[in-house]
Amino acid sequence: MQLTRQTDYAIRVMMFLGIQQDSRLVTISDIAYHFDISRNHLMKIVHKLGQKEYIQTVRGKYGGMRLEREAASVRLGDLVRDFETTLDVVDCKKLTCPITGSCDLKPIMQKAQEAFLAVIDEYTLKDLLNNPADLRSLLGLDDTEELPLQVMAVS
Amino acid sequence: MQLTRQTDYAIRVMMFLGIQQDSRLVTISDIAYHFDISRNHLMKIVHKLGQKEYIQTVRGKYGGMRLEREAASVRLGDLVRDFETTLDVVDCKKLTCPITGSCDLKPIMQKAQEAFLAVIDEYTLKDLLNNPADLRSLLGLDDTEELPLQVMAVS
Repeated sequence: MQLTRQTDYAIRVMMFLGIQQDSRLVTISDIAYHFDISRNHLMKIVHKLGQKEYIQTVRGKYGGMRLEREAASVRLGDLVRDFETTLDVVDCKKLTCPITGSCDLKPIMQKAQEAFLAVIDEYTLKDLLNNPADLRSLLGLDDTEELPLQVMAVS
Repeated sequence: MQLTRQTDYAIRVMMFLGIQQDSRLVTISDIAYHFDISRNHLMKIVHKLGQKEYIQTVRGKYGGMRLEREAASVRLGDLVRDFETTLDVVDCKKLTCPITGSCDLKPIMQKAQEAFLAVIDEYTLKDLLNNPADLRSLLGLDDTEELPLQVMAVS
């Protein structure tokens, strides 16, 4: 029982944007490089973050993205709801279960899922940015914040 | 964010055994046939249910399995803990995340996961067997409880 990779990466992107100084614009390549994850996986996630108005994107040579809202107003529960493909803990339809009509498992799992989301709803992106200096250091973000040339070439 | 198929099937096996009259012994083929799921998937699950002492297995021509304990003493939370491959909602190691050392997401997700399990721990297998007649009917379990000949041939 895990969050999908999509949700995991969406949270990472938001954290990466949250630790940028002076709301600096960053590219998908920046994030892919510093988290060592695939640009392809990030493309869809960044697109959806834009659609859902979590981030602002600026086109052009010096374009990139930054947070659309204050970190304190981005609820983690909303990110999870927006990025998980399903919130059903058991998918009765996918496995075409014959007892769906009289099964008491689903309401129990729904109650448990609500308890899970209620906890996450207490937190915002700001709660993930308590140690920006540590995060920046672990991600190898130095003062100049420049990518190696070979990475810039494909950004 | 879903339970694995393994956990889903483990719960179904336990429900199937729970609605048997007079603790009748059933085979993997019985369960595979009535839930319309693969025998291969069920084999590993039944083996583990035996190992974890949820079920009793009887070998031989007229062998099969039945519940080891009263349904009211089988906590759903235990089944979930025993069958989920991981209880970590985010797997920081699998995706080798560089910020693991200073990331505040994991403790939040752990707290949410505990809230999830706390709800499930309030329920037992007995709570899934409130309507045994309905479940038996939906599963096509008639009075004679005999499998079609072609299914018995591979059981």
